[in-house]
Amino acid sequence: MAAERASSRVLPNGLSSRDFENALKEFAAAIGDANVIASGEALQDYRDPFAFASADPNAFAPAAAAKPSSVEEVRAIVKIANEFKIPLWVVSRGKNLGYGGPAPRVAGSVTIDLGRMNRILEVSEEFCYAVVEPGVTFFDLYEHIRAKKVKLWLSVPALGWGSVIGNALDRGVGYTPYGEHSENLCGMEVMLPNGEVIRTGMGALSRGKTWHMFKHGYGPTVDGLFLQSNLGIVTKAGIWLMPQPDFFIACDLQFERESDLEQIVDITGRLRREGIIQNTAVLSNAVRLISRLGARGKWFKGDGAAPEDVVQRKLREMGLGAWNLRFAVYGPEELAEGRLKIAKKAFAAILGSRFESKKWDVRAHSPEEFTAAIGSESVQAGVPSLFALEVLKYRGEDGGHIGFSPILAPSGKEAAKLANLVGRMCHEHGFDYYGGFSFGGRHLWSVMMILYDKKNDEHRTEVDRLFRKLVKEAGELGFAEYRAHVEYMDLVGDPYDFNGHALRSFTETLKDAIDPNGILAPGKQGIWPKAMRGAGSAHKGV
Amino acid sequence: MAAERASSRVLPNGLSSRDFENALKEFAAAIGDANVIASGEALQDYRDPFAFASADPNAFAPAAAAKPSSVEEVRAIVKIANEFKIPLWVVSRGKNLGYGGPAPRVAGSVTIDLGRMNRILEVSEEFCYAVVEPGVTFFDLYEHIRAKKVKLWLSVPALGWGSVIGNALDRGVGYTPYGEHSENLCGMEVMLPNGEVIRTGMGALSRGKTWHMFKHGYGPTVDGLFLQSNLGIVTKAGIWLMPQPDFFIACDLQFERESDLEQIVDITGRLRREGIIQNTAVLSNAVRLISRLGARGKWFKGDGAAPEDVVQRKLREMGLGAWNLRFAVYGPEELAEGRLKIAKKAFAAILGSRFESKKWDVRAHSPEEFTAAIGSESVQAGVPSLFALEVLKYRGEDGGHIGFSPILAPSGKEAAKLANLVGRMCHEHGFDYYGGFSFGGRHLWSVMMILYDKKNDEHRTEVDRLFRKLVKEAGELGFAEYRAHVEYMDLVGDPYDFNGHALRSFTETLKDAIDPNGILAPGKQGIWPKAMRGAGSAHKGV
Repeated sequence: MAAERASSRVLPNGLSSRDFENALKEFAAAIGDANVIASGEALQDYRDPFAFASADPNAFAPAAAAKPSSVEEVRAIVKIANEFKIPLWVVSRGKNLGYGGPAPRVAGSVTIDLGRMNRILEVSEEFCYAVVEPGVTFFDLYEHIRAKKVKLWLSVPALGWGSVIGNALDRGVGYTPYGEHSENLCGMEVMLPNGEVIRTGMGALSRGKTWHMFKHGYGPTVDGLFLQSNLGIVTKAGIWLMPQPDFFIACDLQFERESDLEQIVDITGRLRREGIIQNTAVLSNAVRLISRLGARGKWFKGDGAAPEDVVQRKLREMGLGAWNLRFAVYGPEELAEGRLKIAKKAFAAILGSRFESKKWDVRAHSPEEFTAAIGSESVQAGVPSLFALEVLKYRGEDGGHIGFSPILAPSGKEAAKLANLVGRMCHEHGFDYYGGFSFGGRHLWSVMMILYDKKNDEHRTEVDRLFRKLVKEAGELGFAEYRAHVEYMDLVGDPYDFNGHALRSFTETLKDAIDPNGILAPGKQGIWPKAMRGAGSAHKGV
Repeated sequence: MAAERASSRVLPNGLSSRDFENALKEFAAAIGDANVIASGEALQDYRDPFAFASADPNAFAPAAAAKPSSVEEVRAIVKIANEFKIPLWVVSRGKNLGYGGPAPRVAGSVTIDLGRMNRILEVSEEFCYAVVEPGVTFFDLYEHIRAKKVKLWLSVPALGWGSVIGNALDRGVGYTPYGEHSENLCGMEVMLPNGEVIRTGMGALSRGKTWHMFKHGYGPTVDGLFLQSNLGIVTKAGIWLMPQPDFFIACDLQFERESDLEQIVDITGRLRREGIIQNTAVLSNAVRLISRLGARGKWFKGDGAAPEDVVQRKLREMGLGAWNLRFAVYGPEELAEGRLKIAKKAFAAILGSRFESKKWDVRAHSPEEFTAAIGSESVQAGVPSLFALEVLKYRGEDGGHIGFSPILAPSGKEAAKLANLVGRMCHEHGFDYYGGFSFGGRHLWSVMMILYDKKNDEHRTEVDRLFRKLVKEAGELGFAEYRAHVEYMDLVGDPYDFNGHALRSFTETLKDAIDPNGILAPGKQGIWPKAMRGAGSAHKGV
């Protein structure tokens, strides 16, 4: 398929081949020939690694990629794009798998790859923050902090190869007490679509020292505008880090029955609101637990969803319950132990639950020892890894996934309602229900992945059907996603319909004012510039 | 002076008396005669209670006030204002004393007083939030919660008569773990300057249940735009409340020497970052402590700043140190006690410090008993009061105040630098240095009030001189305020100068797009609509 794609060149809409060649020359003059990628396998890498749904193999194909190394070079690219009216798409590391990876919403976009802007500009051990460029990965920042023996912990998502800033801007989730990544951003530098640079909050105070300490400034706070956004390009940002705790106690709970779900969610939610559980607790169902073993073929040879009795047998064989809950407690010993005791008592109310914990005296280990020993609890201790990749092989060697991750109330009833709906629909379309819930301070992220075989045409068709149905049926029950694959960015925005999608219209008013040429990431999260909007609908297509 | 002011009617700029009369008729037709105030003492109440600086007594005088009772009535007012190009100013309760109270930035504005929109729409004990209209005061919400025996705690500012929403939108501060009020807003309904209504975050999901549980939604987060803002009128919002803790231990620390400041700040800042101290710790200097007694005349008869030896004598007489620190710890008994122990040990490093604590078993009291018994620790337990008003009498029966409250790093050195500067300048202008610091999670709010006698002309002149100098000299050291009195809204924005005040220009671009007629609160926080902006300067005047 790669060869088939490479044969058809994708141009920005409305631009002649000649004009595009001229634009490419200007890009090359501004940032260097080697940093403009306009053909070949290297350009293929900027497509969706899991593409499945569209009949058109070029639906989300970029025309080129440009790799600036500085704010000035980003500005040069933005100016050229405005001149030629070329849509831009921006990626930090492009590792947002399941959401399209580096692929642009609009075919023929030029993708700005910020991977070369990978400087760690500051780490303040005293005030517990780092300032980084978008190309810095979780691995990079972790290694830097470890090498400098700085006593701060990162919060990392399941896969550590992504961008610290890119992940936070997309509202990524980690598993320490700092796990709501967008909430731990503090102070940004942003290039607007016209090439102007602003610094947010206290960063506007050119003589100030508190840019990365206070999230606000004087007048409106604009930072939120740049989350999941096509209103600006974040060129650096501060991220809060957690003071290294003296103790870390990883807790691992097994629950016998599927019907324990409501009680587990109610108790965990309450402990989160009370601050007893400090981090993003993760609740996993049977398939999610079993998928850690890799290929399903090792224990079930059939097609379609694995039968319930087969799954149950596998669970028992692994010594696991129907639900598994993981969280950790952190702090000075007496506080960590106090939290553990309270949590144990709370979960003892669930008949047949098993509570295991493993205590670490963090100070007793060198960073290297700790990293090596931490193993599968790593994300709760902010140690980046790639363990989670294993899961991709569940339905085939060349596996893909897409998530359906609505936000819901931390209520057992709500969680059960969603789990029942999603489970039933997955089975109907021949997929196992890989699922669970992550616990924010006041909400749940539903975690669900449709794991499929990229080489299987039937899988690809069914994934698309299933996803569309999920958005619709869950939306009718009041559940909607907080992020989306490029293919579904309009669809996922549909249920956000209060007062005729007034919030979307408002954001589009801002878009038109800030980006009159509509060059920056048109269509991202369903926000289209004026020229691409249809009357009363999300967009007229491109 | 009231009579002198009342004699001169203030009209919206450029509007004939006749057109204004017509507008008033339309306002009255829309919301009822009794709810439009266009003259007399009732209109005087919408002026700055502490006005001092301007030579023009009408500099911040409204033309009228309008008191809508519903979103529909707010919309009607906004439409009429657009029709007649009348500037609007919006107050929730108008109790923002020291920042102009209810007074508009632009003379001749019509003030929308949201005080009649005072419904408590929802209190979720399970999910720990309330949804209120802007007219709801801290007293109102507290009484409601107490009456219903809901086990949730508010966070309240020093004075409880203000609006819960208004305070949070202006980035007000309280003294529980939920003390950074703007950070605890979750989900708003906002009327835009064109009369359209949006619901932010998950509120856009008309079938959703998580509007007040998750601060974000799909696409950019716009909520921050409505803080200290003239981009919209918040008509309702969710605010997170704290689960009632089992135990509450109020801590009161005295430090002997003025030079202890650096060490106190460094230790307290660290304990905040580590989560040991959970709430907004408050550090107070000598004058702030003594001012709780009321009139200074009781112990010093002179003019100008009280001499150092007199202040020191008074402190000793009261049995107080040079600095006083108050914070509290909260939670289940073992956690609260654990925190107390750690904090005690940390502060023992400061020679001569005294640490007192008072422990409350919250469950052992009825809400009424607790409220009655809590006394001066009330704000740390979220009990609203008016105790702080006493301070106004410090320099005269008819006292006024204005604060200079920059944000700074939680660093002893920075705090000492600012305290020295502010102390010296206060003394030079004949005022005592009433000051201290409030500890946010990662920053300090400098707390400082210039207390003066409103009837004393020299005082009024010197307050103005002092304030202007403070903004300039502190600004040069990198300290700037996060809010401002209407008189100084442009001035306070000056130091936010990165890239030629690019952030302000950006916000003004949004302003022009959202409010093309520039009717909503022109000049608020230095943000002016296009027609009122000067070339390259903050504004051309009005």
